[in-house]
Amino acid sequence: MNFDIVIHNGILVTVNPDFDIMDDGLVCVKDGKLKQVEAGYGGRPLPEARETIDAGGGIIMPGLVNTHTHLPMTLFRGLADDLPLTKWLNEYIFPAERKHIRPETVRLGTLAACAEMILSGTTTCCDGYFYEDDVAAAVSQTGLRAVLGQGVIDFPAPGVPHPVDNVQNALKFVQKWQGISPLITPSIFCHSPYTCSETTLKKAKNAASAENVLFQIHTAETKSEYDQIQAQQQATPVKYLDNIGILDKNTLLVHCVWLDDDDLEIIGQRQAKVSHNPESNMKLASGIAPVPKLLTAGITVGLGTDGCASNNDLDLFREMDTAAKLHKVHLLDPTVMDAKTVLKMATIGSAGAIGLEKDIGSLEVGKQADIVIIDTFKPHLVPLYNPVSQIVYTAQGSDVRDVIVNGKVLLRNRKLLTIELEDILKKVADFAAVVKAT
Amino acid sequence: MNFDIVIHNGILVTVNPDFDIMDDGLVCVKDGKLKQVEAGYGGRPLPEARETIDAGGGIIMPGLVNTHTHLPMTLFRGLADDLPLTKWLNEYIFPAERKHIRPETVRLGTLAACAEMILSGTTTCCDGYFYEDDVAAAVSQTGLRAVLGQGVIDFPAPGVPHPVDNVQNALKFVQKWQGISPLITPSIFCHSPYTCSETTLKKAKNAASAENVLFQIHTAETKSEYDQIQAQQQATPVKYLDNIGILDKNTLLVHCVWLDDDDLEIIGQRQAKVSHNPESNMKLASGIAPVPKLLTAGITVGLGTDGCASNNDLDLFREMDTAAKLHKVHLLDPTVMDAKTVLKMATIGSAGAIGLEKDIGSLEVGKQADIVIIDTFKPHLVPLYNPVSQIVYTAQGSDVRDVIVNGKVLLRNRKLLTIELEDILKKVADFAAVVKAT
Repeated sequence: MNFDIVIHNGILVTVNPDFDIMDDGLVCVKDGKLKQVEAGYGGRPLPEARETIDAGGGIIMPGLVNTHTHLPMTLFRGLADDLPLTKWLNEYIFPAERKHIRPETVRLGTLAACAEMILSGTTTCCDGYFYEDDVAAAVSQTGLRAVLGQGVIDFPAPGVPHPVDNVQNALKFVQKWQGISPLITPSIFCHSPYTCSETTLKKAKNAASAENVLFQIHTAETKSEYDQIQAQQQATPVKYLDNIGILDKNTLLVHCVWLDDDDLEIIGQRQAKVSHNPESNMKLASGIAPVPKLLTAGITVGLGTDGCASNNDLDLFREMDTAAKLHKVHLLDPTVMDAKTVLKMATIGSAGAIGLEKDIGSLEVGKQADIVIIDTFKPHLVPLYNPVSQIVYTAQGSDVRDVIVNGKVLLRNRKLLTIELEDILKKVADFAAVVKAT
Repeated sequence: MNFDIVIHNGILVTVNPDFDIMDDGLVCVKDGKLKQVEAGYGGRPLPEARETIDAGGGIIMPGLVNTHTHLPMTLFRGLADDLPLTKWLNEYIFPAERKHIRPETVRLGTLAACAEMILSGTTTCCDGYFYEDDVAAAVSQTGLRAVLGQGVIDFPAPGVPHPVDNVQNALKFVQKWQGISPLITPSIFCHSPYTCSETTLKKAKNAASAENVLFQIHTAETKSEYDQIQAQQQATPVKYLDNIGILDKNTLLVHCVWLDDDDLEIIGQRQAKVSHNPESNMKLASGIAPVPKLLTAGITVGLGTDGCASNNDLDLFREMDTAAKLHKVHLLDPTVMDAKTVLKMATIGSAGAIGLEKDIGSLEVGKQADIVIIDTFKPHLVPLYNPVSQIVYTAQGSDVRDVIVNGKVLLRNRKLLTIELEDILKKVADFAAVVKAT
């Protein structure tokens, strides 16, 4: 068999069910899929392929999966920091969105975000925003894989001036993008239980269920949300959502900072999924999600960065490091969230959280070829006693040398192949100049 | 006047007392010092200089100052993770040190650490370890600035087989390095109140005072240390050290995680300094130091990474991001440890913590020329609304393009000028192979 791509001379961190780590690994790709994944290839002649990539003794690993983004909000990175969530949203982000978010700026912000994600080893993201049709068009250009949710909120929003149309709008987006690209999976993203009415939530969930797509929702992010829902619904946010039929295996609950033990049990019973965004929760002072407890309960948890207006980046390497350390100090237990657990969360766990665990999240024969190669010949990556420790605690997004998605090379020797980087950076600077002037 | 170096076309983040940020800045260097620091230079002809550096529209800022390292321990990065402090030390680190730490490995580990620090924008570090004379020799080769403390501990230690010699040994090191290099300031580093007797602590502090050098000591790092000192001395670690005369303005208390309000008052009264190492405290699950309270009390706090065996890197950009976020979520207050406070901590605060605030820590005329230039033309650094937010929340060590220490260029366009990087990386890999085989 002639392969499209053969990768050799690297340490394979497979994240397969046995968590195999293979020295001197070989990975063969054809038609976008992994056809061969094996150890100890040294010496033997390499299989024939259109392209042979020497990993240079670095690490070959599955692409990282970001379970929560608002890609166009990249345009507001650093616009306002060190503020309470409501002030940050109401006085800075919402006004900036009203003034500056249009289809063309959504495309620009998405392209900048995709450049950042590819350059830091993310091969799939799960997004929720407005003008999601334009997000999808821009992501498609870059060759990244994504689950994309059109936003639903009971206020006038970018592209949805009349909230009464919000669910219909989201449904139209889903129907348009169903099955037309192997890389784009449509979804519906309801903003939260405090910004969507019960009617809206039910309608949106019904639409998502009818189309068999992922339903995403910010849930139990802050104490004030928790208190508000308690007061209005006499139930925690999770119980309220469960009472009205929102929770099932196609529901992604984003944040889940404020949970009681019953909430954990409900999430487990319904097989709903959780997106953990530690850096955003830290920066906005929302709180610390009980992730070790969620994992112990057998709940699927994926890692996310959140929009980079509240992080302020889309780098999952940094997020892994933070996730590993935050829960240790919070529980005063250095053994929780060990490096292996965290790497699984950012790959196969994230894939499971967004319904793609059969296709991505590990290097296994039959899965899609979403692969990252890390250059380890750098001072901060030596010595290399344990590649998993190095990935979680030391590697940076900028150590990613090559990125392959669906068998296609998107980054080669740190050069983006599908994005005109210089042009995008200049346009983002022009956009910022307009924002600053208004 | 002809300058040695002129830097232009960048945003100057001075960290001077007014925290001035200057567009289109100009920095002129001669004889290792800053001679001119000003804004709005566009258009006019540049002053003559031996070397003119175009910052390319990026950020020009003071070099970062790392107040706590164990440079040679770079050789044990990732050797063991996700373990309690005592198990990590007793079962992994101490045995590895006994077997593998010698003068030549100390020099190797130090060179690797210096390469990592320069490549991530650190221009000064404050170190404590054994064979510190070899650390000093290696650091001197690289052109970095450092305060270096010979270790004192009441056990046999690398290079100090008989603990009875420990203080004498440290004093000899200090006397040898006093005044012989503008870049190396000697110091004494007592390991901790639980590994040094009262006699040793007093002798070491007296030696440091006699030589007028910084006295460093791990203090109140873990709850178990706190409990042990309470049981043995009927006092908190800080009160115990104060009772025996250790605290004054030349004392750097490293960690200070477990403090009560009286401890804060004592530290303030004695004008002792604090080194904050959030990532190490998180990873070892030691706890969260009350840094916002320390700052409110007017205490000088610097930032540190700790040895990279417990972090696992020496990157102060990551450490700033973590410091800014950790206290927000801990106190559920998004306004604490804002970006400006954190940048000050990592520069002028750190300089003050190690007694060098008159020489370094800000870009001001008359200070030493320790300068970092950040390349901001990258997707994760656009848009650029606020350079301070970008430095703290978004920039990575790898965004550092150029580094100047004492008026000498150590890094130019990401290329190290004083370290044979390839050779060092190969030797570190060889060292790791020996460790793994034994």
